[in-house]
Amino acid sequence: MSTLQKYRTLLEIPDEMQLLTLGEGHTPLVRSRSIGPDLGLKNLFFKLETLNPTGSYKDRFAALALSGLLADRAPICLATSSGNTGAALAAYSTIANIPCHIALIDGTPMGKLTQMYAHGAHLWMLKDFGKDVKKTDEIFEGLKGIAREYNTGIQVSAFSTQPFAMQGVQTISYELCDRGNQPQDVFVPAGGGGLTLAIARGFQKWSLAHKALHTTRVHCVQPEGNDTMASAIRNGKRAAPVDKSTTTISGLQVPSILDGNDVVREVTETGGNGYLVTDQRIMEWQESLARKEGIYAEPAGAVSVAGLERALQQGEINVNDNVVCIITGHGFKNTSAAKPEVVHINEFKELKKLLNKL
Amino acid sequence: MSTLQKYRTLLEIPDEMQLLTLGEGHTPLVRSRSIGPDLGLKNLFFKLETLNPTGSYKDRFAALALSGLLADRAPICLATSSGNTGAALAAYSTIANIPCHIALIDGTPMGKLTQMYAHGAHLWMLKDFGKDVKKTDEIFEGLKGIAREYNTGIQVSAFSTQPFAMQGVQTISYELCDRGNQPQDVFVPAGGGGLTLAIARGFQKWSLAHKALHTTRVHCVQPEGNDTMASAIRNGKRAAPVDKSTTTISGLQVPSILDGNDVVREVTETGGNGYLVTDQRIMEWQESLARKEGIYAEPAGAVSVAGLERALQQGEINVNDNVVCIITGHGFKNTSAAKPEVVHINEFKELKKLLNKL
Repeated sequence: MSTLQKYRTLLEIPDEMQLLTLGEGHTPLVRSRSIGPDLGLKNLFFKLETLNPTGSYKDRFAALALSGLLADRAPICLATSSGNTGAALAAYSTIANIPCHIALIDGTPMGKLTQMYAHGAHLWMLKDFGKDVKKTDEIFEGLKGIAREYNTGIQVSAFSTQPFAMQGVQTISYELCDRGNQPQDVFVPAGGGGLTLAIARGFQKWSLAHKALHTTRVHCVQPEGNDTMASAIRNGKRAAPVDKSTTTISGLQVPSILDGNDVVREVTETGGNGYLVTDQRIMEWQESLARKEGIYAEPAGAVSVAGLERALQQGEINVNDNVVCIITGHGFKNTSAAKPEVVHINEFKELKKLLNKL
Repeated sequence: MSTLQKYRTLLEIPDEMQLLTLGEGHTPLVRSRSIGPDLGLKNLFFKLETLNPTGSYKDRFAALALSGLLADRAPICLATSSGNTGAALAAYSTIANIPCHIALIDGTPMGKLTQMYAHGAHLWMLKDFGKDVKKTDEIFEGLKGIAREYNTGIQVSAFSTQPFAMQGVQTISYELCDRGNQPQDVFVPAGGGGLTLAIARGFQKWSLAHKALHTTRVHCVQPEGNDTMASAIRNGKRAAPVDKSTTTISGLQVPSILDGNDVVREVTETGGNGYLVTDQRIMEWQESLARKEGIYAEPAGAVSVAGLERALQQGEINVNDNVVCIITGHGFKNTSAAKPEVVHINEFKELKKLLNKL
């Protein structure tokens, strides 16, 4: 049974709506064997959203988004994306049999373009979109106008735009609670903040429906170059756009306030906090995940671990707590930094010599 | 609970052995919405082995292989691979903390090299290995000798070499039976034949332990350019090596007899058959899976669907049967054929014009 179907009663979905699925959700929760102990944590787990059909948690959003578009007989799926939302929507559009058009953030990496194109999506890359805040907001408004002409909405993975489909992402929290092992702390990578908000709302919704063991603190982690929410949470301020996002971490570059103010309020209500991390440390944690834990994440997917490190440095986490880092997207989506070293060998005896030297 | 742990009693694993996991198995079984109906089939399902941790069914093998090497305190994981076995072993070697060395088949695609390298494996690409049968067999023997010097075996995903670890792959059949909906027919892509054999043995083992509903016919599908087993099954002959494999389908090029004769015998016992398909048809089915079913497979992963098409053309499948195609590996592993078409746009009004023309 799909995760949307399993938790249907915790989602506000019309009774008659048919739910599309490509096998999203039910992702593994894997105990850390190395990074957790190295950081002094007894119970660190990774939630592998990398193992969704298109390699990111956005499949939970897209499954519900396209179910809705199909029910509405929408003539088009029109979306904005830095890649992961687009790949997910492109895949689910095929089973809804709805043409998919994606306005891409300038600089979307090749791995994600390849995925979207494989699923037959129409790809439009717009200059400065997702980098310059004024241009980004203008394009959003323009796209909303186009969508209205088609009697549909624009697909953006944010509650501010698509509250219905974003409910799909709340299933992450339901899965974490359902194992009878609800965590004390969850670290979440944040760009526009939709994922963080979905996870906070998911725990809240679960605790209303079930006898919750305790509150789960939901923490919002951002790259320093795009601090739209993290400092605001820490300092009790409102979310604020940045003029120019300077982080290189694809997927977390959006300079606009999307779900920002709801994130600040609801993260604070969970007892969670905001954390800023450097791009360099994110890249180092990406490498550590792959080389120590066997988990191949894209850079954005490793941001949660960098945030956990900050929280521990600041003494804000109890080392006995059950802590979950959300690993949001698969490494294959953004391989620009990787240049595999391969030794080419013509004669077998050369290999024998090389191995004997090790 | 990991799939190896869940089905531990159906596997021959020493009681005291600790089983490593990265969340392998428990892969989705998705009903075809388009290809099945187009082919006239009422109940076609895809088993998405693409959604394993490193993107292929080889993770089921690697999880058990590294559990065994860890229990044996092996000093090295020495493997041969065309990419997927290597990526899986590289990932699980990190959590076993054992250095991983991979002798690569000549022509291993970049996506797979990137994965193996990300997990810190040492990569050796050997000229003509996996293409020329004489050279391939020589290199296999040489590697076995090196492994012996380290008091370990060579990691090849074949029962002929690693019968212990190959049991892990049998969990595919257990998962298919456990849903109470055991299929009548399963189509399996075959190179060396290990996957086909594991699936046949899995159904057999399940039927000994449980009251099986019926026999499942296991079908072996190969590209025409590497017919080591398919014709042999059909004609009641023995498996035979090919001098030079001419297929371009990465992962299914091995010209040697690995599990070939066991495959011929045991597939025949299930009532299954052998099917040959062209490289071109494989590529077309890969595209159809991505564009009609939202499933992004590597070319080898689409071979099962091409085989099913052949079987239907030859009138060898009952259209009311419950049929499963195994989709073995993810599209991101081999993107050489994909060149995404992206329209670059400087001003928003250009996008509006283009969309209005659609």
